[in-house]
Amino acid sequence: MSWQDKLRNVQPYEAGEQPQIKNLIKLNTNENPYDPGEKVKQAILNFDSSHLALYPRPDADALRQALADYHHLDTRQVFVGNGSDEVLALIFLTCFNGQEPVLFPDISYSFYPVYCDLYQIAYKKIPLNQDFEINKADYIQPNSGIIFPNPNAPTGLCVSLDMIEDLLKHNQDSIVVIDEAYIDFGGQSAVPLIQKYPNLLITQTFSKYRSLAGIRLGVALGSQEVIAKLYDVKNSFNSYPVDSLAQAIGVASMEDSDYIQQNAQKIIETREYTKSELKKLGFVMPDSKANFIFVKHPQYDAQKLFLQLREKGILVRYFHQPRIEQYLRITIGTMEQMKILVHEIENILKA
Amino acid sequence: MSWQDKLRNVQPYEAGEQPQIKNLIKLNTNENPYDPGEKVKQAILNFDSSHLALYPRPDADALRQALADYHHLDTRQVFVGNGSDEVLALIFLTCFNGQEPVLFPDISYSFYPVYCDLYQIAYKKIPLNQDFEINKADYIQPNSGIIFPNPNAPTGLCVSLDMIEDLLKHNQDSIVVIDEAYIDFGGQSAVPLIQKYPNLLITQTFSKYRSLAGIRLGVALGSQEVIAKLYDVKNSFNSYPVDSLAQAIGVASMEDSDYIQQNAQKIIETREYTKSELKKLGFVMPDSKANFIFVKHPQYDAQKLFLQLREKGILVRYFHQPRIEQYLRITIGTMEQMKILVHEIENILKA
Repeated sequence: MSWQDKLRNVQPYEAGEQPQIKNLIKLNTNENPYDPGEKVKQAILNFDSSHLALYPRPDADALRQALADYHHLDTRQVFVGNGSDEVLALIFLTCFNGQEPVLFPDISYSFYPVYCDLYQIAYKKIPLNQDFEINKADYIQPNSGIIFPNPNAPTGLCVSLDMIEDLLKHNQDSIVVIDEAYIDFGGQSAVPLIQKYPNLLITQTFSKYRSLAGIRLGVALGSQEVIAKLYDVKNSFNSYPVDSLAQAIGVASMEDSDYIQQNAQKIIETREYTKSELKKLGFVMPDSKANFIFVKHPQYDAQKLFLQLREKGILVRYFHQPRIEQYLRITIGTMEQMKILVHEIENILKA
Repeated sequence: MSWQDKLRNVQPYEAGEQPQIKNLIKLNTNENPYDPGEKVKQAILNFDSSHLALYPRPDADALRQALADYHHLDTRQVFVGNGSDEVLALIFLTCFNGQEPVLFPDISYSFYPVYCDLYQIAYKKIPLNQDFEINKADYIQPNSGIIFPNPNAPTGLCVSLDMIEDLLKHNQDSIVVIDEAYIDFGGQSAVPLIQKYPNLLITQTFSKYRSLAGIRLGVALGSQEVIAKLYDVKNSFNSYPVDSLAQAIGVASMEDSDYIQQNAQKIIETREYTKSELKKLGFVMPDSKANFIFVKHPQYDAQKLFLQLREKGILVRYFHQPRIEQYLRITIGTMEQMKILVHEIENILKA
C-alpha cells in the first residue's frame, strides 16, 4: 500500500464562485449587499494588536453574553464556532449518535450528507413535496436526529413555529436541529421554543443577516445540557477556533442590531420587488423568506440563462441537481443591482 | 434510546488556564511575550471593514503566496487553516487511511490520539527513551503514518535533519508529518527536504514564533499532491475556515519577518539564561530548543512547586501524566519575567 493509497478520496464541494472581476454583480453566495456597520468598523480600528500574541478567550464569554442578552437566553445556552459550517459539523459529531438514520430533506444544504459520511452516521433524505414543502408526517418515524434549514435553502420556504413544535412533540428522543441561517429576512425564529424543549438546537450565523461572511462566526442556541456537550466535544480536539478579532467584531455587531435590522428590511423590500418583476416576466418561484429567491422560467432553460447572465457580468447560482436543474438561486442585492438584473433578464428573454 | 443517549461522550481536553488576573506572569501556554509587530498593527488599522460582508478568499492565495516565497516553495505546496489544531485534525483525516497503526511518541502533543479516536484511526504510542529521546529504529515498522513534533512538546528536544531523512527513506509508503510548531527557536526545519520526499508533510503555526496565537493560523507544507488532497478534503465539508482579517494579518506578519526573528533571538537568549539559572538551583532538564523549558528538581515535588508559583502570580504548566509528573513546562517570557521566576523559585526552595 503506497502513501498515495492512504490518502482519503472525496468529491470536493464546489462553493459558489468568488471571481475577482471588477463591476461584477455578485448574486451567487447569499452575501449581504450592505456593510457590517460603524460599530464593527470602530471595533477593528480600536483593536489592540498586541493582544494577538495571546490565545483567544476559549469560551468567547463576551460574545456569548451579547448573544444571550439578544436572544433572552443564559450564556450557557449559547455556543459559538468558526462559521456555521464548523458548528454544524460539530453538531453532527456530537448529537446524532443513535442506531436509526438522521432525517433531512432531499433538497437542502448540501453539507448535511457530507457531515454524515465524515462521521459515519446513517441518514435518510426525505423528498420535499412537489411544491418543495416539508411534509411533517415524513419526520414522524424512528430517527437519530432531524435537521433542516428554516427557511430552507435553496428554496427559501419557511415552515411555521406550530409545525416545529409539533415535530418536537413527536420526537422527544432525538435532537431536532433548525438551521436558521436565513431566519432574519422574514421568518419566525424557533428560539422561544428552546426553554420548553431541551432537545431543540438552533443554528444561526453572522454571515448573512449581519454582513460578516468574511469573519467566520456561527452560533448554536439550545439547552444548557446540549450546549455543554458541544463544548466538551469541541474542547476535546480544538481549543480555540474563534479568533480574538472575530470575537470583538461579533460583540460590536450585536451592539449595532438596529442598523442591521434596517438593512434586512431593505433586503426584504428588494426581494418582494424582484419577485414581482420576475413574475411579470413569466417566472415561477416558491415564496422565499430568505435573502435569495429560487426561480424557474417555464419556457427558458435555467443553465442557458445562468450562462447568459454571467456574460453580462451578473453571477447567480445554478445547481446541476435532480428536481432543481431548471431553477436559479438569486441572492437579493441592492435595489440598483436587482433593477439591472431584471433589465438584463428582460433583454435575454426578448432576444 | 433518549436524546441524551445519542450525545457523544468525550473526555474534554484541559488547555492551559487563561485566567484574567492582573499582573499575572503567564508562562503556561507557550505564548510569545512580544507583540506581533508594526506591520500587523497597520494591516488591522487599514483593513476595510466593508469587505467583511463577502466570504473570504477560499484559497487564501495572497497568504499562501507569501508563505511560498518565504519557504522557497510553490503556492500549491502551501495549505493554511484555522490554527494548527484544525490543520492537524485534517491531516489525520486525509493522510492516515491505511490498515496499520499510526506511530507517534508516548510523550508528545496530547491531541494526536484524540484525532485518531475522532476518525477511528488505529495508533501506537512509541515510548521515548529515558532521556525523552526519539529512537529512530522504533519508527521502522509497518505503519499508516508517522507524526511527531520537532522540537517535541513538552520536552523541547530536537531530532536532526539526518534522522528525519533516514526515517523518510525507511517509510516511503507512508506520510511522515513533522509538527514544527516550535522550530523557529533554534531547531533546523525540514522544509528543504520537501522537494526530495513527496510523502513529507510539515506543519507550522503563526501562534508562537509570529506572536499571533489570537488569530488562529496554521500551515501545512508539502508536495503538491498531498496539499491538493488536503484542500479537496477540507473543501468537501468546510469552504472558508480562514477569515479575511486573519489572511490579511498573516500576510503582514510575513512581511515583518526580520522583526519577528529578532524577537525569537531574544527568546533564545532568555531561554539559555533561564536554563543556566535553574541548573544552579539544582534543576535538571532536557536541552530545549523551543520557547519553553521542561524542568525537574530532584528534591522538590513538581505539583507543589506549580501551586506555590501560582500563589505568587506565576502560572506554569503541570501535567498529571505518567513519566512526566515531576516536571514543569515553563514558557520563556521576557528576561524581566524570567528573572522574577528564578527569584521566586529560589525563595521557595530556600523556605
